[in-house]
Amino acid sequence: SDDLFLISGPCVIEDEKIMMTVAEQLREIAERLGIKVIYKSSFQKDNRSSLDYYTGPGLEKGIAILAKVKEQFGFPLLTDIHYPDQAAPVAEVVDVLQIPAYLCMQSQLIVAAAQTGRVINVKHGQFLAPENMKHPVKKIEDSGNEQIILTERGYTFGYNDLVVDPRSFYHMGRTNYPVVFDVTHAIRKYGIPSKDAKGGAREYLPVLARAGVAAGVDGLFIEAHTCPSEALCDAASQLDIRYLEEFMKPLLELHAIEVKYRNTLPELA
Amino acid sequence: SDDLFLISGPCVIEDEKIMMTVAEQLREIAERLGIKVIYKSSFQKDNRSSLDYYTGPGLEKGIAILAKVKEQFGFPLLTDIHYPDQAAPVAEVVDVLQIPAYLCMQSQLIVAAAQTGRVINVKHGQFLAPENMKHPVKKIEDSGNEQIILTERGYTFGYNDLVVDPRSFYHMGRTNYPVVFDVTHAIRKYGIPSKDAKGGAREYLPVLARAGVAAGVDGLFIEAHTCPSEALCDAASQLDIRYLEEFMKPLLELHAIEVKYRNTLPELA
Amino acid sequence: SDDLFLISGPCVIEDEKIMMTVAEQLREIAERLGIKVIYKSSFQKDNRSSLDYYTGPGLEKGIAILAKVKEQFGFPLLTDIHYPDQAAPVAEVVDVLQIPAYLCMQSQLIVAAAQTGRVINVKHGQFLAPENMKHPVKKIEDSGNEQIILTERGYTFGYNDLVVDPRSFYHMGRTNYPVVFDVTHAIRKYGIPSKDAKGGAREYLPVLARAGVAAGVDGLFIEAHTCPSEALCDAASQLDIRYLEEFMKPLLELHAIEVKYRNTLPELA
Amino acid sequence: SDDLFLISGPCVIEDEKIMMTVAEQLREIAERLGIKVIYKSSFQKDNRSSLDYYTGPGLEKGIAILAKVKEQFGFPLLTDIHYPDQAAPVAEVVDVLQIPAYLCMQSQLIVAAAQTGRVINVKHGQFLAPENMKHPVKKIEDSGNEQIILTERGYTFGYNDLVVDPRSFYHMGRTNYPVVFDVTHAIRKYGIPSKDAKGGAREYLPVLARAGVAAGVDGLFIEAHTCPSEALCDAASQLDIRYLEEFMKPLLELHAIEVKYRNTLPELA
Repeated sequence: SDDLFLISGPCVIEDEKIMMTVAEQLREIAERLGIKVIYKSSFQKDNRSSLDYYTGPGLEKGIAILAKVKEQFGFPLLTDIHYPDQAAPVAEVVDVLQIPAYLCMQSQLIVAAAQTGRVINVKHGQFLAPENMKHPVKKIEDSGNEQIILTERGYTFGYNDLVVDPRSFYHMGRTNYPVVFDVTHAIRKYGIPSKDAKGGAREYLPVLARAGVAAGVDGLFIEAHTCPSEALCDAASQLDIRYLEEFMKPLLELHAIEVKYRNTLPELA
Repeated sequence: SDDLFLISGPCVIEDEKIMMTVAEQLREIAERLGIKVIYKSSFQKDNRSSLDYYTGPGLEKGIAILAKVKEQFGFPLLTDIHYPDQAAPVAEVVDVLQIPAYLCMQSQLIVAAAQTGRVINVKHGQFLAPENMKHPVKKIEDSGNEQIILTERGYTFGYNDLVVDPRSFYHMGRTNYPVVFDVTHAIRKYGIPSKDAKGGAREYLPVLARAGVAAGVDGLFIEAHTCPSEALCDAASQLDIRYLEEFMKPLLELHAIEVKYRNTLPELA
Repeated sequence: SDDLFLISGPCVIEDEKIMMTVAEQLREIAERLGIKVIYKSSFQKDNRSSLDYYTGPGLEKGIAILAKVKEQFGFPLLTDIHYPDQAAPVAEVVDVLQIPAYLCMQSQLIVAAAQTGRVINVKHGQFLAPENMKHPVKKIEDSGNEQIILTERGYTFGYNDLVVDPRSFYHMGRTNYPVVFDVTHAIRKYGIPSKDAKGGAREYLPVLARAGVAAGVDGLFIEAHTCPSEALCDAASQLDIRYLEEFMKPLLELHAIEVKYRNTLPELA
Repeated sequence: SDDLFLISGPCVIEDEKIMMTVAEQLREIAERLGIKVIYKSSFQKDNRSSLDYYTGPGLEKGIAILAKVKEQFGFPLLTDIHYPDQAAPVAEVVDVLQIPAYLCMQSQLIVAAAQTGRVINVKHGQFLAPENMKHPVKKIEDSGNEQIILTERGYTFGYNDLVVDPRSFYHMGRTNYPVVFDVTHAIRKYGIPSKDAKGGAREYLPVLARAGVAAGVDGLFIEAHTCPSEALCDAASQLDIRYLEEFMKPLLELHAIEVKYRNTLPELA
């Protein structure tokens, strides 16, 4: 489809009430904007900086909460897995299995995910030249699965900073799979805990999202929360959900122009 | 003005006939698209890799050719200077004095340019964090000149590569001066002579330009030539002028959307 | 100990005969140089670019071969694990469990490894500012294990290139755990298969190793093979073992000078 | 010569008394260590962030002070020039003309400097892949001058940070001209005024210098001042001269080892 879709939800699965409130607001936004929303939340954060930080409710409880969201609101679900043995149980409920960026080169994990037959969303590793994303794509295809999404989330740029290179969208788009832009993690400042307000740079969200959409993405990934400052993970980078609708409006119009002009130019080489 | 403007012309001043042909085609394109064009060409390339490469006709001859272009086609002119004593003679004819990216921190050069009273276009140094562009801006203001343009052209990314960071447009835009995106030099591959076809990556031109426009630039800088492969400088990165009009069309529409939504969101901090 | 130690062996576990030949030559080199050697080889490569590439003999067969090396030559063993359930069985035989660079932030993996009580060698992620290596260190300590080694192997620098920043040795050294320099992977050129001779830049090995030793490392990590061009992994970057002894000689002398002058200067702040 | 030489002095020419005091202390250090010292100071800083900052006494007064230092202490002199017309008058007194890093690609400046017949020290541009330093070298040679020094001072790494890549010493060394490591500017934090203590990271000086020397440099460039915190430029990065002698001792010993093992290995390719 040529319509811009949205992957959204709280970063990590929190209290069920918050999860439902966010879902309800997402449904309203989706209806008013006329867009498709995939509900995203993590049952386990495996790469937080400290063992003391909240990592989520775990697979079983987490999937149960996601299942309720799906049942009540009808959203397709997306969550990330970190180890091969999580693939099958998660795939029973979740529609899109996400491979975290750090893990995009782990063959066993990718194969296990691919073999579930679910859609696989591979995040672009912060350390991987974007054209090399063809490698995880090929691994998934070679496992008999061609339902693939690729998601950009910024590339290592000096220390504790990420850059979003528009050329990345060019390369990922050439795989002919849908490309998503995770603008939430692109503004994360590593080395600063995500609960510290300086751990994210939300002022860049509009300029990044607009650039990414004009560069040709098919979907946006924006973690949203009813009260980001109290979120249990990525408090500094999630978007306050009350801004989400206005945030999306210019993106939908930019996307329409971009789609109109896709492939209208000859290859300039 | 809210209209996207275009800085274009051959990289370096070549044979007068070529200069006039390009100008004529630019006038036609400008009229059909309804955009303002500033004619750009260099009388001296001072940072080519070899003393054996063509560096242009020099100041006197070069300015004379530019004057003819202005007289015949009415374009405002833009050219770059490298040494303080070039500022005054160039300013007699040229409307916009450009400070090359490598030289954006050279105080004497900037002051000399500013004191001519002409518009100053400062290119963003490949080595300068974009928020630091406030420093050359302040030097120009302190010299009594507030006619300033800032131009992005890519930032050092590993060796022999440049990245266009959408955040750069955010920072340069906060100066409240017009911001331009020089997409031609952003695709240059250093370490490979510009006459070698591998010295530029034109396949990135559309995705970069679209991202930059949606990120909020006010103008585009695209060097164009009637036969890039025979151009005397930057043969691998200049655009064949026959593609220029089609290249601009989506950018004008994206720009209109971007302008419509400028400052419609609260600052997300 | 103040003596420079060496981690060496073939990248991946190959034919038993090759494994033993390398071990024999390493023993001779170790004796002649008077240094301690830890024998390293991988039973599984989980992040190769293609599912078609050789990934090793697997855990069971691989550990059996390593056990023979240990029995026959007396080396302590080092190998890398990718999933938590590999930690315990590997730890039965292997002395040092290595956490791969891409996985240095995976909490479950690190905790499982730490809980074996074996020495843990954490590779510095290509995406992690070196001072952030304190985070995996703390996770291991919090799991009750203080036998830790940290290994530098280069940091993302543009696309498909790694840079070895001497400041990384400064930061990792401040943890007060031994720091190792993996010079073999620092010269790998990603995006080019490791069997292609252009996939590694061995010409940099001496300059990098010398810089790293003078910067204060405690050990070197150099994959070595009797015939690198026929190696089943990292053919382009492993060192031909016949050069290893000469390669180490200046490093031992530089290390002696560096140790002599450790902490002789006041902190310059 | 195989002896490590030292380029040192205050960043910018200040009060004559300070210049003489530094020179006197440098002479004593040089004698005790048995090394050759080249006295460095700038008569003009042309790329400071603000027009309000001190830029030095200017060419005429500055050169006069340097001449006194030379007369009284016998040091060869080094200073940097920014514009072609400074080359000839500076060369009357100064032995080594330095081309600043930002300006290393400016042909007219380099040619003017080369034509004086003095030694030319070209700083490695923060934006130039190190192997491309062959281009300024060739421009100097083509101007009839083969007295060349190349100086590393760090390469752009993300924003406001520089990395010292040991591979740079490899590439610059292959020109067969002496290579110097300017450790003072490698620790500068751009975007923070140099008078702010956070504008430099002196804690890295030992690790960087040791790495650079082991990587094969022929000389060190260390700006030194009797009271850095009151220095009129680069207050945060100059070394307090009372630490200089101890700072150099390990470097001399590391250098002796490195020279002993130069070219003892075959080219590893």
